[in-house]
Amino acid sequence: MTDLIQLGKQAKQAAYQLGQLDTKRKNELLLFMADQIEKKTAVILEANQKDLAQAEENSITETMQDRLRLTEERISDMADGIRQVAALDDPIGEVEKMWKNEDGLMIGKQRVPLGVIGIIYESRPNVTTDAASLCFKSGNAVILRGGKEAFHSNQILVSILQKALEAQKFSPFAIQFVDDTSRETAQKLMTLNGYLDVLIPRGGASLINAVLKTATVPVIETGTGNCHIYIDKDAQLKMATDIIVNAKCQRPSVCNAAETLLIHKDVAADFLPVIEKALNEYSVELRADEQALAIFKQSVPATEEDWATEFLDYILAVKVVNSLDEAIEHINKYNTKHSESIVSDNYFATQQFLKQVDAAAVYANASTRFTDGFVFGFGAEIGISTQKLHARGPMGLEELTSTKYIVYGDGQYRH
Amino acid sequence: MTDLIQLGKQAKQAAYQLGQLDTKRKNELLLFMADQIEKKTAVILEANQKDLAQAEENSITETMQDRLRLTEERISDMADGIRQVAALDDPIGEVEKMWKNEDGLMIGKQRVPLGVIGIIYESRPNVTTDAASLCFKSGNAVILRGGKEAFHSNQILVSILQKALEAQKFSPFAIQFVDDTSRETAQKLMTLNGYLDVLIPRGGASLINAVLKTATVPVIETGTGNCHIYIDKDAQLKMATDIIVNAKCQRPSVCNAAETLLIHKDVAADFLPVIEKALNEYSVELRADEQALAIFKQSVPATEEDWATEFLDYILAVKVVNSLDEAIEHINKYNTKHSESIVSDNYFATQQFLKQVDAAAVYANASTRFTDGFVFGFGAEIGISTQKLHARGPMGLEELTSTKYIVYGDGQYRH
Repeated sequence: MTDLIQLGKQAKQAAYQLGQLDTKRKNELLLFMADQIEKKTAVILEANQKDLAQAEENSITETMQDRLRLTEERISDMADGIRQVAALDDPIGEVEKMWKNEDGLMIGKQRVPLGVIGIIYESRPNVTTDAASLCFKSGNAVILRGGKEAFHSNQILVSILQKALEAQKFSPFAIQFVDDTSRETAQKLMTLNGYLDVLIPRGGASLINAVLKTATVPVIETGTGNCHIYIDKDAQLKMATDIIVNAKCQRPSVCNAAETLLIHKDVAADFLPVIEKALNEYSVELRADEQALAIFKQSVPATEEDWATEFLDYILAVKVVNSLDEAIEHINKYNTKHSESIVSDNYFATQQFLKQVDAAAVYANASTRFTDGFVFGFGAEIGISTQKLHARGPMGLEELTSTKYIVYGDGQYRH
Repeated sequence: MTDLIQLGKQAKQAAYQLGQLDTKRKNELLLFMADQIEKKTAVILEANQKDLAQAEENSITETMQDRLRLTEERISDMADGIRQVAALDDPIGEVEKMWKNEDGLMIGKQRVPLGVIGIIYESRPNVTTDAASLCFKSGNAVILRGGKEAFHSNQILVSILQKALEAQKFSPFAIQFVDDTSRETAQKLMTLNGYLDVLIPRGGASLINAVLKTATVPVIETGTGNCHIYIDKDAQLKMATDIIVNAKCQRPSVCNAAETLLIHKDVAADFLPVIEKALNEYSVELRADEQALAIFKQSVPATEEDWATEFLDYILAVKVVNSLDEAIEHINKYNTKHSESIVSDNYFATQQFLKQVDAAAVYANASTRFTDGFVFGFGAEIGISTQKLHARGPMGLEELTSTKYIVYGDGQYRH
């Protein structure tokens, strides 16, 4: 079994070194790592073949295999991803504000790295280079623990990154890989107190829940999205239809896709048939409450569980509500605090919705699909936090940092 | 045993109501609560007498009894504390930044309450009104669990605050009290997942450690301070002496007091006798390494444990170091990431210290005693965070908040 304490110690030392690097040097190292990934395309593809062969052996779905599959183009995209991270502004060192207090002390609030970040993730190998480069740029050492499906691909990728760092006379322990996909080791990583400053799980609800249940290190909860679109009585039919079709069907497997449609009773009879027709083109299964059931041509009754489920599929729960208040109450009861949207022409309805709905991102007249670090303009995304502590919503580089107060005195002591 | 789930449910509902209140109304309620505390001075003193009688029975030290003791003046100070919180700027609702993204969406990052805050604390009854008013002003419901020494005082204080809220037709569940000081109930509070958005322990190292070990809800670690003063070879003797005497002796029982003095070998022989004499006036016990031992008139050998100990007493560990690097290494190894200070005339030494020392507050030429929300100018303090996630250093109102993204669209969906 991997000696996680050893990994933790190495990570702490590397984190200290990394925290002292200037931006210029960090960028040079990142660009060198990107080049090495591209240069080693052949060996990466070879390792990826092992994962794919194993996937076929285990009769893993074609969709999953596609996620796993690397090509020359995809490897080149991974390298470009690292280069994009190099091009981002470095948050470390920035003094957010500085002021003089009553004692004449100059007090500055400066951005510093968190230290050592653990990441537990599933399937896609590109998460390896994404996460490694984002942690590196923000001055953090990282311990990566990927899923067993992509084990060989992840392992070779980290080994290339480490060799690149070594070739540049920098500690390879800034980016480490847990080369053991056992449950026990994952649990040890979740309880690596004293070494991990934060653990970020990236993956499905079952992974997130396992981490929340077991972890004793600080965790940033990401990704589960039971998102709603509420169509108000003052909504425009075309806009409402476009938004719900986009939120449900553009990419149903992602966390910012919509799972439940709430619609005001005054427009249900007019709107739902049009929406049903549009969703039919994507063969969306409708799970409806009694009133919606009576309007739809084809739907099944929704169960209590459906309101709380993140389908991540072409399935939509639909409920007719009597008022905006009822819609907000339903959302605050069942949502996972991710992304919620109202479609309405009414000024006061949208303002009330934005104010009263409790979620990381609340929209008026836009698809929930926009909740994303790149779309928001952060230039990167390590995940979408659905908790309230430390970071909420799409997390870019800044969310991977902490602060410290630097205080310039001239001999002051306290009276 | 107290039904914490019931308290949690009530808190969540009250938090939602409280989150919707305007600043003006919150301030009115705070001022009314302050008045009620003053009006009920007699009953508060009566309850406090019970705690004091119990303390005497249990032969609790005079210092502890003094902490526990309420007087008319102290109750009036508590009421004034609430009024000061009312006078602070309200962080809730503030849109920190707002921008238009490439899709034409207006994205704003808005301050919102955390929700429900749990606070576990010891002895002083004034923490009850302090914490309650800070949580209330920042829009959070609070569940307070004080120590058994101050049980009757805390209970009457919360009951007065609750009655004040009820008299103003507001939910009394915004401020709740765990009227059971058993260990089991404390443990239940630490695992009240789904109800507590954060738990803040305020007290000694043993309380903090117990919470860190048991809690499964998010925690903000506060208060443990193994703080260092490093006297560089280019330090001024008078400034160095003033700062170390202040940091050690002005109030040795608090977390920002110094526990270890590190001194450069080049000035040890000249400086330590002067410093010893100054510390002698406060009868400070010196626990010294071999070199310092040889210089001091009266000291005992320091043990390995002493370097890691927060004495909170008139005891100072002293070590002679060969270089600034050695001082920084020692600090980063033994400190609790609270407050650290260098005394030096040398520009590069101070800059290196500010950069490389890992702590919430790092000082050049000032006493560590300044780490404090009031001194920093935040107008309040709920505690001093020694962790890196969410908040670091003195925590004011802003640290009791989260954010949400509010997004104004005009029909956008994602391509």
